[in-house]
Amino acid sequence: MKRTLGTCYYPEHWPREIWQEDARRMAEAGLTWVRIGEFAWSRLEPVAGEYDFDWLDDAIAVLGAAGLKVVLGTPTATPPRWMIDRHPDMLAVDADGRPRKFGSRRHYCFSHEGYKGECARIVTRLAERYGRNPHVAAWQTDNEFGCHDTTYSYSDAARDAFRGWLRSRYPGQGNDGDIDALNAAWGNIFWSMDYGDFDQIDLPNLTVTEPNPSHVLDFRRFSSDQVVAFNRLQSEIIRAHSDAPIAHNYMGRITDFDHYDVGADLDIASWDSYPLGFLEDRVPATVAQQQTYARQGDPDFQAFHHDLYRAVGRGRWWVMEQQPGPVNWAPYNPAPLPGMVRLWSWEAFAHGAEAVCYFRWRQAPMAQEQMHAGLLRPDSVDAAGIKEARQVAEELAGAPEVSPSQPDIALIFDYDAEWAWAIQPHGAGLSYFELVFDTYRALRRLGLSVDILPARPDVLDGYKLIVAPGLMHMTEALKAALNDSGTTVLIGPRSGARDATMRTPVPLPPAMPGLDVTVSYVESLRPDLPIGLQGGGAIRSYRDVLETSAEILVRTEAGEAALVAQGQILYSAGWFDPSAMMRVMRLACLRAGIDTMDLPGGVRCRDTGTERFWFNYDTETHVVAGMTLDPVSVTRAHRA
Amino acid sequence: MKRTLGTCYYPEHWPREIWQEDARRMAEAGLTWVRIGEFAWSRLEPVAGEYDFDWLDDAIAVLGAAGLKVVLGTPTATPPRWMIDRHPDMLAVDADGRPRKFGSRRHYCFSHEGYKGECARIVTRLAERYGRNPHVAAWQTDNEFGCHDTTYSYSDAARDAFRGWLRSRYPGQGNDGDIDALNAAWGNIFWSMDYGDFDQIDLPNLTVTEPNPSHVLDFRRFSSDQVVAFNRLQSEIIRAHSDAPIAHNYMGRITDFDHYDVGADLDIASWDSYPLGFLEDRVPATVAQQQTYARQGDPDFQAFHHDLYRAVGRGRWWVMEQQPGPVNWAPYNPAPLPGMVRLWSWEAFAHGAEAVCYFRWRQAPMAQEQMHAGLLRPDSVDAAGIKEARQVAEELAGAPEVSPSQPDIALIFDYDAEWAWAIQPHGAGLSYFELVFDTYRALRRLGLSVDILPARPDVLDGYKLIVAPGLMHMTEALKAALNDSGTTVLIGPRSGARDATMRTPVPLPPAMPGLDVTVSYVESLRPDLPIGLQGGGAIRSYRDVLETSAEILVRTEAGEAALVAQGQILYSAGWFDPSAMMRVMRLACLRAGIDTMDLPGGVRCRDTGTERFWFNYDTETHVVAGMTLDPVSVTRAHRA
Amino acid sequence: MKRTLGTCYYPEHWPREIWQEDARRMAEAGLTWVRIGEFAWSRLEPVAGEYDFDWLDDAIAVLGAAGLKVVLGTPTATPPRWMIDRHPDMLAVDADGRPRKFGSRRHYCFSHEGYKGECARIVTRLAERYGRNPHVAAWQTDNEFGCHDTTYSYSDAARDAFRGWLRSRYPGQGNDGDIDALNAAWGNIFWSMDYGDFDQIDLPNLTVTEPNPSHVLDFRRFSSDQVVAFNRLQSEIIRAHSDAPIAHNYMGRITDFDHYDVGADLDIASWDSYPLGFLEDRVPATVAQQQTYARQGDPDFQAFHHDLYRAVGRGRWWVMEQQPGPVNWAPYNPAPLPGMVRLWSWEAFAHGAEAVCYFRWRQAPMAQEQMHAGLLRPDSVDAAGIKEARQVAEELAGAPEVSPSQPDIALIFDYDAEWAWAIQPHGAGLSYFELVFDTYRALRRLGLSVDILPARPDVLDGYKLIVAPGLMHMTEALKAALNDSGTTVLIGPRSGARDATMRTPVPLPPAMPGLDVTVSYVESLRPDLPIGLQGGGAIRSYRDVLETSAEILVRTEAGEAALVAQGQILYSAGWFDPSAMMRVMRLACLRAGIDTMDLPGGVRCRDTGTERFWFNYDTETHVVAGMTLDPVSVTRAHRA
Repeated sequence: MKRTLGTCYYPEHWPREIWQEDARRMAEAGLTWVRIGEFAWSRLEPVAGEYDFDWLDDAIAVLGAAGLKVVLGTPTATPPRWMIDRHPDMLAVDADGRPRKFGSRRHYCFSHEGYKGECARIVTRLAERYGRNPHVAAWQTDNEFGCHDTTYSYSDAARDAFRGWLRSRYPGQGNDGDIDALNAAWGNIFWSMDYGDFDQIDLPNLTVTEPNPSHVLDFRRFSSDQVVAFNRLQSEIIRAHSDAPIAHNYMGRITDFDHYDVGADLDIASWDSYPLGFLEDRVPATVAQQQTYARQGDPDFQAFHHDLYRAVGRGRWWVMEQQPGPVNWAPYNPAPLPGMVRLWSWEAFAHGAEAVCYFRWRQAPMAQEQMHAGLLRPDSVDAAGIKEARQVAEELAGAPEVSPSQPDIALIFDYDAEWAWAIQPHGAGLSYFELVFDTYRALRRLGLSVDILPARPDVLDGYKLIVAPGLMHMTEALKAALNDSGTTVLIGPRSGARDATMRTPVPLPPAMPGLDVTVSYVESLRPDLPIGLQGGGAIRSYRDVLETSAEILVRTEAGEAALVAQGQILYSAGWFDPSAMMRVMRLACLRAGIDTMDLPGGVRCRDTGTERFWFNYDTETHVVAGMTLDPVSVTRAHRA
Repeated sequence: MKRTLGTCYYPEHWPREIWQEDARRMAEAGLTWVRIGEFAWSRLEPVAGEYDFDWLDDAIAVLGAAGLKVVLGTPTATPPRWMIDRHPDMLAVDADGRPRKFGSRRHYCFSHEGYKGECARIVTRLAERYGRNPHVAAWQTDNEFGCHDTTYSYSDAARDAFRGWLRSRYPGQGNDGDIDALNAAWGNIFWSMDYGDFDQIDLPNLTVTEPNPSHVLDFRRFSSDQVVAFNRLQSEIIRAHSDAPIAHNYMGRITDFDHYDVGADLDIASWDSYPLGFLEDRVPATVAQQQTYARQGDPDFQAFHHDLYRAVGRGRWWVMEQQPGPVNWAPYNPAPLPGMVRLWSWEAFAHGAEAVCYFRWRQAPMAQEQMHAGLLRPDSVDAAGIKEARQVAEELAGAPEVSPSQPDIALIFDYDAEWAWAIQPHGAGLSYFELVFDTYRALRRLGLSVDILPARPDVLDGYKLIVAPGLMHMTEALKAALNDSGTTVLIGPRSGARDATMRTPVPLPPAMPGLDVTVSYVESLRPDLPIGLQGGGAIRSYRDVLETSAEILVRTEAGEAALVAQGQILYSAGWFDPSAMMRVMRLACLRAGIDTMDLPGGVRCRDTGTERFWFNYDTETHVVAGMTLDPVSVTRAHRA
Repeated sequence: MKRTLGTCYYPEHWPREIWQEDARRMAEAGLTWVRIGEFAWSRLEPVAGEYDFDWLDDAIAVLGAAGLKVVLGTPTATPPRWMIDRHPDMLAVDADGRPRKFGSRRHYCFSHEGYKGECARIVTRLAERYGRNPHVAAWQTDNEFGCHDTTYSYSDAARDAFRGWLRSRYPGQGNDGDIDALNAAWGNIFWSMDYGDFDQIDLPNLTVTEPNPSHVLDFRRFSSDQVVAFNRLQSEIIRAHSDAPIAHNYMGRITDFDHYDVGADLDIASWDSYPLGFLEDRVPATVAQQQTYARQGDPDFQAFHHDLYRAVGRGRWWVMEQQPGPVNWAPYNPAPLPGMVRLWSWEAFAHGAEAVCYFRWRQAPMAQEQMHAGLLRPDSVDAAGIKEARQVAEELAGAPEVSPSQPDIALIFDYDAEWAWAIQPHGAGLSYFELVFDTYRALRRLGLSVDILPARPDVLDGYKLIVAPGLMHMTEALKAALNDSGTTVLIGPRSGARDATMRTPVPLPPAMPGLDVTVSYVESLRPDLPIGLQGGGAIRSYRDVLETSAEILVRTEAGEAALVAQGQILYSAGWFDPSAMMRVMRLACLRAGIDTMDLPGGVRCRDTGTERFWFNYDTETHVVAGMTLDPVSVTRAHRA
């Protein structure tokens, strides 16, 4: 697989006169890809029904002539102002009932059929015109689905669509649903919440106290399905006119829709990687970690997403937007340390990326993102990032081919579980994403490469250890597949705590075949009242209290089970602090026959088929496995 | 008086097949009472006007056959979904102007006449059918009035009713009110806020800056009266058909309506006691206290409510819902320490409870409260709580009869004062409830039993010391009764600071007969800038600066009056920190001829007529008065 | 210039019987001015069109007879309730789309033409009746424009007016604007935000993510212009009937509209000075500073506003409302230390105030401000403040005349820059006001007197040093005037970072003639990650990274430029912490030939033409320049 670089470009922002020079400099810097078009609807169709593709034809020609390949984006994330006149009710509505107005981006409701028709129209035009264009070598649908909290809409359109979705999910006679089935599934008897008809069901916002969790979970699933359908509408149109692969650019830690489901309709998964912005904004990190890595980003957050999107893309994935300098949107926006742009780029490749594209070519002198760095400054002078991009391009030219290699360890990440935890966290701030990320971080600190997997029984082959924390709902098929896998499997806490409709199952969880464990009750804990473990570390925030005949591998100071094992199945009876998490993962690896290391500070490694890449996020030198790892460095070693 | 136990049960949640076994197990556990029905409207009337009482007949019969007594709840806290179609404007409206939608509970406005008519209808049906049922031995109206911030509604119905209420409060010619009287009472001249007509008066939300405090206080009083009227409508109907006593189950630290007023229409006050949830959510406690008592609950919060509801019930009161294990709704939800369920139960009895009912019988496997523990697990296995309930039942069987005993000390708690402080706290976070609670805690740490009283002149007899902090409005009758009581009386700070319509009176406060004290000015203090007292302790947060010829008992470090006395009247010129509060209460007791102790940590005691109960909330052993109090224990001693 | 005292009085709040005695006591206390009328609309016009001026005639006569001069306020900040019936859509609308209801004050939208007509009518009546009244010696328009966040309204009236304003700002053919010019100026192509017509432009609230900064800046400028027009409407009417000077009373740290622009239509600037309330509520102060000065107020905040309003009033300015005791509206409301009312008064005079008026005469016994101290208590007894007012009056009688004196140092404060920083702060919490205030504080701690200036080229004469931090937009005229001034000039950080429509200019900032500095990129910093400087102090929160051939005067620990100079132009490449700020200002003064001191703690000085005033805000004695400054004291020295 050839590894390539690219950038994001907006020809419509710049005078025609400089396009050629821009293209020349891109090519000279060693870039292959140029993503264009994704916010340009108002120039492609300045007035409803009046198209102007000439400038885009021209831009693609100029870029292509310079030897660049174009990723063409559909412009549906930014409908023009005239669209609102045609469809005044197309705006999403927030949970407080307020329409989310025109004036920035993503101002649409995924359930609005009128707007979806408009999207089909513009995408058809683009696909017809550019589907066979030799320079258009890939497509991108929309931009960052879900960003700015846009998955959920409480509009009338969403309400009506939700009712239809529920009718299908709880099917009855003819075209109508079975309202009794829904009432039973949701447990609506609980507070006289029974419905007599699907048309009585409203969206679960603005209720007096918390709404029925089953109601919310179905609304979340519905909302995710609406994103999937919105994307599929576009990908099917493009596919009808083009053989180029289709991608979407996901945003970091957006979990409101099921990325596996969206990804199933696409050829490539890509994501937008802003390590410094994320560290301030969405990485589960302590203040000390934020201080230490303020100019490097978290040592695990990017890697987690790389591994996640490798799964979402079924092996094919990109970084579509790579931070090249300070961003504009985090609480604090420092510049990266010299070397970090290169490090981030190589880390993506080490995790299997096909391409890394820097956002953006030239810093914009106007509008919302004018403080977001580009590869060039607004005055077209080279910014710091382009120098590192050039270095990566040169290094790529001499780098060996990548041979993919399946790691020993799989970690399951499931969007449905994320929603279930969000609906009933039980303790303030508890998040499934953070539980999985804590687990991932521990595995990485043990020097391990990891595959992230969906919670599906058909993808579990070939691993020595499968780790599946916090899967609040586990299908019987998944349980059976794990039990039958012949692999060491670590589940818990909270595994199987809910059935498919968010009810507590009886027999009590986890009801895992091959494991005599019953969660007798659960509790959430104040962060300042962890439960110490014999031998070090602690359970924090959440725990299951077990009835079990399994072997107790780790006990609380009071002697209760914290980690148990029966055959190849292990159960974690709590959320472990970092020290205990590493201890438990080490134990699991030992049982699975996997060697571990103890990596210092911000050192991480990642194996490809032939190489071991070492990344040092720290500003100090580390010596690991006999190798000297310079501050902020990438080190490549032939794989043992 | 016979002391009994009970539980809360929802037959409609469970298959008919298991009712009998449930009833048998309840009886076997020593329970007397089963509360049912209070959220079952959608099963009692699945379609408007179509009733189904058969299942309830059956459930009552099954329970009764097992020897259990039924508390029958009216289902008006959870109107079914069809009700919203009949009365779309019955929903309460929040202070931001948003209707509070169907989908959980308490989705009604207390001022909606249409809904009140529906409530009268269903309650009439229930009262007619079950008023003479031999197993229905008590009633409960609605459920937890005011919970989820539901006392206040900013709906059109509330606005119209408020105008009518104001016309009555400021009466004029004929049926109309006297708008000039209202303008004068509210001081509307202040910012040209005068009204020309009652129909110009709006609810006091969404004003540009704070609304007129007199306007807000009248709105709060009106809102309280609407709750009273709502409850009275039901109690009058029930009384017409049944001789069984009627209760309502109040929720801890809900102070938005006057519980004494609601209680006046009922036979029994009851409350819902969730010590661990409260500690995280609504007890005025430091973080250190929250850590120390995370699994026991605050040592004073339950007792305070026990004493309060004894007053509200005019001697007759229950715990209608007792936490039996982890709850689901606090920020953190740990399990109680072993022994706490028993301790809480006995503490209620020591304070005079007739019954303690555990919420709930079996943990629900669905909907909003599925993480709330029951006496049974969802799989019907005994949970931890039922074992302690059984122990209490056995102990009750051998316990001596309770002879009531009036303590030496009365502490006044007044809802109107709570509202006045909330409207004009003067300093961030200042709360009348917390001032009274701080006072109560100090008295309890001195080993004292306390009666809580309303601010009424007719209930003051027989005490050696009456403590009445923070009564922002005191009627002349109350002042006279206190002065004439022959009892030691401690008032202040802020006593009499407002007249009946929230204006500052002249002569300046407190204008207490028999006490030469004038509050010259007041100030609120940063929490980190307390005013130290000579001899230890400090004033914190709030103080009155006095002109006085009274004896100064406690001075600030600068020599100003902090506590003064003239004859039997004492005045506290500030909000004392815990150390100063104990010192002042000790001084007041000394003057009143009351002996005090200094109880360590979480040790508290409570006297009945014949016994002294000792409660140790701590996890360490204490030795007090020669007795060894085990960790988490109840100790009973014959009263000296 | 004669320096005078006054007070704020509300005859309509008090019985006619006591007016005479009130007036007598005011005069006896040495007061000259009485401000009345500014909230009295409901008494001046109880019913629409029915006027009652008799009581006001009477009140003015009574006050005048006692020798007092009246400041007559227009009552437009408190339209009566009947006004809302006449103009239901006159209420402002908040950013969430909710009308801001009647029931307090300032409940109007500056863009509502109907309400502006009503204001013109009542002001005309007042001006006609009292324009030549011998006792009416000054006027006040409205009250505290912008207070309670009232500059911005998102009403339909505001939206329509904004569209008209934009048409004028981006003029096209005939009466219409040029929408292409607007699109280009705002950079609307960025996210397909182009408009086809001015009527498509909405107000920049409730967008999905941040709106276009150019859109917001124009909305802020428009909103400021609406305040200016509202005020001008009144001042023009008054001027047509009266020769008395006209003032408005601004509120501390209200920066939503351009005070220079409003001031241009008035004769006197005045402001409302509440040092203790401000310290808790709006001074950029650390907790330690809040603790130290809880009863004195910040040592620089009042002085900053004094100097600002001297500029706004073009030399003529008052304190219209001076805190005389505890206020009611801050989070915590302590009493001032004895001597502070006197200190604040003298400090105003030292900065050139013509008059200081205490708010209010007598503490109100009703409504929203009943906990706000007056010179008298509600029972008419002298409060603490009046004693200090009397002392000031006596001291004024014997004080020398003030001869004005222009200081050596000018500090530019620009409202447009404040808005630009607020729109794109780049780092959480960054505020232009605070940057300028930090600079001012450093200059004051160096013992310097300062003029505050608008960012205009025509006001720069006669200074030795001009400090202009953070001017995000600088006109070419201003740049040239600074460069040509022959004066030492200190600019940066962020100077010239935006053009007139909030776009990043190319060549890159600051593009200052005479200074070879280019800001290559910028970054914002976590507060806990400052960048240390060689020689002490640090850059915090924000910095510019420079390309420069200028002399580097201060370097970061890594050697980068923190302060550079070329000729007489200096550039600060960051926001300095207090230590570095003093160091940089000392350096600039040295280059400008200005002597500095290092004043301890809360000691400040201020020079008039003949005197040096020393103010000691501390509770300890300081010895400075051989003089002993008592705690909480004013010390006057003949100027060297």
